[in-house]
Amino acid sequence: MKAYVYVTLKASVLDPQGQTIQNALRKMGSTSTDSVRQGKYFVLSLQDGLSPEQARAEVEHIAKDVLTNTVIEDFTYRIEE
Amino acid sequence: MKAYVYVTLKASVLDPQGQTIQNALRKMGSTSTDSVRQGKYFVLSLQDGLSPEQARAEVEHIAKDVLTNTVIEDFTYRIEE
Repeated sequence: MKAYVYVTLKASVLDPQGQTIQNALRKMGSTSTDSVRQGKYFVLSLQDGLSPEQARAEVEHIAKDVLTNTVIEDFTYRIEE
Repeated sequence: MKAYVYVTLKASVLDPQGQTIQNALRKMGSTSTDSVRQGKYFVLSLQDGLSPEQARAEVEHIAKDVLTNTVIEDFTYRIEE
């Protein structure tokens, strides 16, 4: 079972990395993007034998307490069999 | 229209960041993960008026030439209306 966790800065938080990418794209002549925001992406390989409920609880715990700074970041996740 | 780009290290490339997270989880008493791998995640806001084909071509170009180091990384993307 694999869990995919996506961590993004909250919309109200400035994202200088994303802004830098956006500026670089402009300088390269690409005008198709209005904005770019960067986040983090984690792939967790979960141990066999976890029930879907246990997996969800574990992934939520890990995402919230370890992978995300909840003051400035939000997370979403999805679990795949 | 928004495009979501996921960049991950190729499977054959060591991921010390992911390994560090995995070790931290072990030390915290969590035994539910076999491994953790970290990647990057980008949200591109695309300009209005792009056709789906144009959007796909643009996002692939940006992902391949700017966001990904294709020697050690792979990318996937999805586009949402």
